[in-house]
Amino acid sequence: MGLVCSHGKEHGTHAPGALHHLKATPQTVHWGYFSPDLAPALTVKSGDLIMAEAITHHAGDAPELMFDEGVERIFREIDPTTRAPGVHIMTGPIYVEGAEPGDMLEVRYLQMTPRNNYGSNLAANWGHLYQEFGEKERVTIYELDPVANTAHALYAYDFPGKYLVPGTITNCPVCDRQPALPGITIPARPHLGTAGVAPAVNEPVSTIPPGLHGGNIDNWRIGAGATMYYKCQVAGGLFSIGDPHVSQGDGEISGTAIESSLNCLFQIVLRKDFDFPSPLLETPQNWIVHGFGEDLDAAMKNASMDMLHLLHEHQGLSKDDAYSLMSVATDFGVTQVVDGTLGVHARIERRLFPQKGTVTDIS
Amino acid sequence: MGLVCSHGKEHGTHAPGALHHLKATPQTVHWGYFSPDLAPALTVKSGDLIMAEAITHHAGDAPELMFDEGVERIFREIDPTTRAPGVHIMTGPIYVEGAEPGDMLEVRYLQMTPRNNYGSNLAANWGHLYQEFGEKERVTIYELDPVANTAHALYAYDFPGKYLVPGTITNCPVCDRQPALPGITIPARPHLGTAGVAPAVNEPVSTIPPGLHGGNIDNWRIGAGATMYYKCQVAGGLFSIGDPHVSQGDGEISGTAIESSLNCLFQIVLRKDFDFPSPLLETPQNWIVHGFGEDLDAAMKNASMDMLHLLHEHQGLSKDDAYSLMSVATDFGVTQVVDGTLGVHARIERRLFPQKGTVTDIS
Repeated sequence: MGLVCSHGKEHGTHAPGALHHLKATPQTVHWGYFSPDLAPALTVKSGDLIMAEAITHHAGDAPELMFDEGVERIFREIDPTTRAPGVHIMTGPIYVEGAEPGDMLEVRYLQMTPRNNYGSNLAANWGHLYQEFGEKERVTIYELDPVANTAHALYAYDFPGKYLVPGTITNCPVCDRQPALPGITIPARPHLGTAGVAPAVNEPVSTIPPGLHGGNIDNWRIGAGATMYYKCQVAGGLFSIGDPHVSQGDGEISGTAIESSLNCLFQIVLRKDFDFPSPLLETPQNWIVHGFGEDLDAAMKNASMDMLHLLHEHQGLSKDDAYSLMSVATDFGVTQVVDGTLGVHARIERRLFPQKGTVTDIS
Repeated sequence: MGLVCSHGKEHGTHAPGALHHLKATPQTVHWGYFSPDLAPALTVKSGDLIMAEAITHHAGDAPELMFDEGVERIFREIDPTTRAPGVHIMTGPIYVEGAEPGDMLEVRYLQMTPRNNYGSNLAANWGHLYQEFGEKERVTIYELDPVANTAHALYAYDFPGKYLVPGTITNCPVCDRQPALPGITIPARPHLGTAGVAPAVNEPVSTIPPGLHGGNIDNWRIGAGATMYYKCQVAGGLFSIGDPHVSQGDGEISGTAIESSLNCLFQIVLRKDFDFPSPLLETPQNWIVHGFGEDLDAAMKNASMDMLHLLHEHQGLSKDDAYSLMSVATDFGVTQVVDGTLGVHARIERRLFPQKGTVTDIS
């Protein structure tokens, strides 16, 4: 096999097809769930580009900044009691012509731009230090500088009561606003917290726990320039995006990121030539696998086994060699620690495999 | 307070004092334990430079490559039954004049150079996937390119029996050597796996579990250019180094890194002006705290609490602000997953605090 294998050449030069626009409206979003029974909001061919709106379910934390007419319609028109069993506003689903169960969707994220320049971080009742903070919930509103690609806090307030209804609209009085994080500028990392295909389950599936379909992976590296591979579970794949973030640390320990609506340009390529058991991420620097579990130790084991799978089955290393390489050159990070959705990811550098094109170029 | 606070100015310009050489010999190493009862191998003043030899306890995995006269003396002369209760060869201890319990030792690691150009990775019986690999142990020998700062595998062999005695000398016959990781070049990350002060305990303390004294933290960022802060528990601190690695991934999942002897140049500065509850790391990019625990979830909680402590007590943020910043801009990584020594670290970027000098410049 030469420097560029046939698989890499084939899909590496996949010319963009049509460009579709998918606005987020009460008719084109589903709030809190994935479902195989949803009618497609859009149908595309392999290779097509999609410019889609992803709306944060935390826009109500600062409606004066994060609402516009389109966002407000979604919050006003979708009955709060139907926003279940999860919490995220998902735009889609997108039906990919020809996609069958077992096929992979290669989703190349090309651009993520803020819809407005504001975001909210909630120290939530599902956060890692909720007990340590005396069961207090608190909102910190951030302003983005899209040119510098940074963010800084504008103000903060204690949330009244308990944050239980997705999309709660909180009109914090000006008098209750407190200054926050004076002098601190943080790097922005725009990305999608939740995206994936419809699970093959005959009921709505919560958007909260990540899984083989993708979902709420919350890896901040799923941004522009990155490519995700999701395994289709139903015909057409039924891919949706949501939970947009402008920044998050590995761990997302307060329970949320800087939650902020994003406009996302991406290309979907249908892949029938390879297979991977869990959501796979390729950035310009790394190949990344994701493990999930009831606790971090279980998530760690799952991430380990999937990195072993990647290096052995896909990159052609012996299992022994792969294990050694995983110990000396693979970095494991904590992706998120929310109860029920604990995640660990494993990163290996692409430069270790200079003969390869993409992660899917089988040895 | 100005751009550079008094603490920063004071110790930032701390001129190097005397340069000491500390060779590793059977008389200047302690194998498997820290102890407050050891006679100092060297006594220094605050600010002095030390050029010390750190010897890997895995040199016996490839004695034809990793032994020299000095290493062999240590392996031959130190009774294997005394290498307990841990496994690492520690050079020291170094007594720092004037250091009292509660003082901090600021150890500035300046240079780490290979003693020879070979290292060993063991897929060990204490590794994360030992059961999944059918309880097999395997050695992979790596060769370093110190100019390119890379490593590649030379050969591998299955370890005969179970690796139980620290410093086992294995003369793998040439005929049993198998090629390993063909075509793979990995980046080197020379660092110390284990270093720390003597715990104030009236018995030898294993080098294996990390703790407040430092010890086996196994963070690959503890390399040249990084500074560690260790809290003295006994007079003089009694600082020792060992467990040298030329590369490791976060997680060190096979149970070992590329274990390879290093010559280490460092400066020790005695600090009586600040305090931190656990081993604190400062790299050119990051401030890093370490949490340890019986499982990853406990280690995660401990790392979270210590990052909260750092941002609140040392950097002057309110606890609320600190928690938000930890969710949106702090990355949590898995440091190691060996039973009994699970570790999680938390990294925050120094550029978020442009007015600060070092991590110890109190607001």
